[in-house]
Amino acid sequence: MITVLADTAQREAAAAWFAALRSQICAAFEAIEDEADCVFKDRAPGRFTFKEWQRPEGGGGIMGMMKGRVFEKVGVNISTVWGDFAEEFRSRLPGTEKSSAFWASGVSLVAHLHSPLVPAAHFNTRMISTADKIWFGGGGDLNPMYPVATDTADFHGAFKDVCDRYDPAYFPKFKKWCDEYFFIKHRGVARGEGGIFFDYHNTGDWARDVAFVREVGEAFRDIYPALIRRHLAEPWTPEQRQWQLQKRGYYAEFNLLYDRGTEFGLKTGGNVEAILMSLPPEAAWP
Amino acid sequence: MITVLADTAQREAAAAWFAALRSQICAAFEAIEDEADCVFKDRAPGRFTFKEWQRPEGGGGIMGMMKGRVFEKVGVNISTVWGDFAEEFRSRLPGTEKSSAFWASGVSLVAHLHSPLVPAAHFNTRMISTADKIWFGGGGDLNPMYPVATDTADFHGAFKDVCDRYDPAYFPKFKKWCDEYFFIKHRGVARGEGGIFFDYHNTGDWARDVAFVREVGEAFRDIYPALIRRHLAEPWTPEQRQWQLQKRGYYAEFNLLYDRGTEFGLKTGGNVEAILMSLPPEAAWP
Repeated sequence: MITVLADTAQREAAAAWFAALRSQICAAFEAIEDEADCVFKDRAPGRFTFKEWQRPEGGGGIMGMMKGRVFEKVGVNISTVWGDFAEEFRSRLPGTEKSSAFWASGVSLVAHLHSPLVPAAHFNTRMISTADKIWFGGGGDLNPMYPVATDTADFHGAFKDVCDRYDPAYFPKFKKWCDEYFFIKHRGVARGEGGIFFDYHNTGDWARDVAFVREVGEAFRDIYPALIRRHLAEPWTPEQRQWQLQKRGYYAEFNLLYDRGTEFGLKTGGNVEAILMSLPPEAAWP
Repeated sequence: MITVLADTAQREAAAAWFAALRSQICAAFEAIEDEADCVFKDRAPGRFTFKEWQRPEGGGGIMGMMKGRVFEKVGVNISTVWGDFAEEFRSRLPGTEKSSAFWASGVSLVAHLHSPLVPAAHFNTRMISTADKIWFGGGGDLNPMYPVATDTADFHGAFKDVCDRYDPAYFPKFKKWCDEYFFIKHRGVARGEGGIFFDYHNTGDWARDVAFVREVGEAFRDIYPALIRRHLAEPWTPEQRQWQLQKRGYYAEFNLLYDRGTEFGLKTGGNVEAILMSLPPEAAWP
């Protein structure tokens, strides 16, 4: 017997927002593909292709994927899934004492660019409901191969503006969480330049929480394309490309060894192709 | 207080064999690099370079690495380490009830070739001693991008010959274990064409067990170079190379998500560079 505390209106509103944000981000990325001022200007602009999948236990999702002249590989996925957590996983999540039922919806994005001078990025927001809890989670982090201080500052600043409108305590907390989360323990290095990360977010005011998550998504949708455009026309060297492939190797290590979303997906019978869409188009361990 | 059941002579003999096998295999691979009949014959033959590392808690190892004209990246590592298992890991290993002390020595090898028509391969043998147990483990498996039935049969056959000299029950058991172990669960596919895998191997006759492990190593040392030579001169297409990069992506997924040796190394404070040497020089997730 599945019981979920989140009511139908809440579930529909959250899932609809994630789908809307997906469409807005895809449009923003296709607009970048259309601009002529990129290094591979002789190639055709890329377009997203979408693929639906069904989860036998309940729900499904839509994978969006584009391989273009700016974006070497970018995946923007939405999914809404429900059912019962496997026992092993259940005990690690709140609100599952009485029932293993869950409902989860989210949007997640990983962008790998051709240019080693354009930062890669990750963004994700989700709403999860178990029998006794509802919460939001998500975040975004910037993964430049060659960090540029103003890019990092602007990326962080966009999230800080949103956070500060809700609670001045959010940004320092979520930034620190991001730095701690996206850390490659075995190498002792950060995965990238950080951003924000939050989980189990529930202030008791659902409308305010979903509005916060919405604004976090809009902030990413606006700042990341701006950062891409800054570096679109810069030519790169084979050495820079080689370093990019190596950094992508670290990125793959993080996702396969530590990422909570990868684990959540694989342990809840998610779509393997969608879960592993985050892996880089090419990587190197020289 | 460290107490280890394996006596000094046993430890020295095992570690010495692993080092000797390392040298024999490196010589065999360098001999292949010297042969003119390969696709990149205009390039210089590769040579192994060796790098020692010390483990602060006790022991260390030597990484051997070659990037040549046949071998795109091959690592042949030996290590001998000792100390105390971390609590989390200890309970999962036999003979650790009274003490967390361990001693471990082994040789491990992963070969990634330029040619998508030459199979990649993995080989490893090790001796582990805890306070109350001594055992051997290891195995070898073949990872062709385009399986060839006679290659697989000869690779399996070389191990079967050794196994059958010790116990006719070994080969079926160790082959099955290999098929089960090198299986990429989330994709529902085998990592490669298998071979043998064994662990916790202790018949009560240490001399016989180390002799078995020795012959397993010699079998690999002889059959794998023979398989490489079969395909050395075959030209390949860009499409075949692309498939190779994709299969290597699966290989990286296996090693980071499931491999026991990777986990053992990272959890016992091993050398990260040595542990992750198995990762492919280039990989793709298109």
